Amino acid sequence: VSPAESAVVAANAAFYDAINRRDVATLDLLWATEAPVACIHPGWPALLGRDDVMESWRAILTSPEAPRIRCEDPVPHVVGDTAFVVCLETIAQGTLVATNVFVREHGAWKMAHHHAGPTSRRAAQRTPSRDLN
Amino acid sequence: VSPAESAVVAANAAFYDAINRRDVATLDLLWATEAPVACIHPGWPALLGRDDVMESWRAILTSPEAPRIRCEDPVPHVVGDTAFVVCLETIAQGTLVATNVFVREHGAWKMAHHHAGPTSRRAAQRTPSRDLN
Repeated sequence: VSPAESAVVAANAAFYDAINRRDVATLDLLWATEAPVACIHPGWPALLGRDDVMESWRAILTSPEAPRIRCEDPVPHVVGDTAFVVCLETIAQGTLVATNVFVREHGAWKMAHHHAGPTSRRAAQRTPSRDLN
Repeated sequence: VSPAESAVVAANAAFYDAINRRDVATLDLLWATEAPVACIHPGWPALLGRDDVMESWRAILTSPEAPRIRCEDPVPHVVGDTAFVVCLETIAQGTLVATNVFVREHGAWKMAHHHAGPTSRRAAQRTPSRDLN
C-alpha cells in the first residue's frame, strides 16, 4: 500500500464518517473546490456541479431518514493526482457498491465524484470471475 | 468545450460503439494498460483488475443477449491527465446512468473504470435540483 493509496482510503473514510455524523460542514470541505464535481445518488439522475451536489447532501443529511452507511472493502486506484475508490456501502436497506473519484488539490485528496448504486451479489466481491460461468 | 473534453467524449463514444458492434478486440484497446482498471456492471459486484474486467466484456459481448446501448448526454470532467464522464445509457430494459473514468496514456484517453446502474428519473437529468423539493 503506497502513501497515496493510504491517503485516498483515509479521504474515503472521512467522507462516510461525515455522512454518519450528519456533518454537512465537514462534508463540504471534503469535496473539491477547483475540479468539476458530480454525484449520482442511488437511483437518482446525475447531479452536475458543486452547488447541486452540496445541496443534495444538505437535504439528505438534514432529513429524518438520513442514512447510516458502513463502508467496506475500499480498493484505491491512484493515477498521479487523481484516484478512484471502489467500495461497498451497507445501509439499512442492503448493500450498495460505490465509485468515489478523488483529486489532489493543494496536497489534500478531495472528492470529485460519488456514484452509488445497487449490487446484487455481495459474496462475489472477492471472486467476481466465478459469476460469469 | 476544450480539446481534452472533446477527446474524452470521443473516447467515451468509441467505448459504446465497440460494445454495439460486439467488437471485443477494439474494446480491449480502449482500456488502459498501465493504470489499474475496474468495472461495475449493472447490479454486479465490482470487478477489479484488467483480466477480470476484459473477461467480463468478452462474456457479455459474445452472449446472445449482448446489449445494445445508446449513450446520451455525455458530460466530461477533465482534471489533468484523468477524466470522468457521466452519461445516460439507454438499453432495451430502460435507462441507466454511468460513470466512465479515463486516463491519458501515451497521448490517448483510455478507460480505467466503468460503473453503470439504474436511474429512476430520466427527465430530471437536466434539472436535478428540482428533485430535492
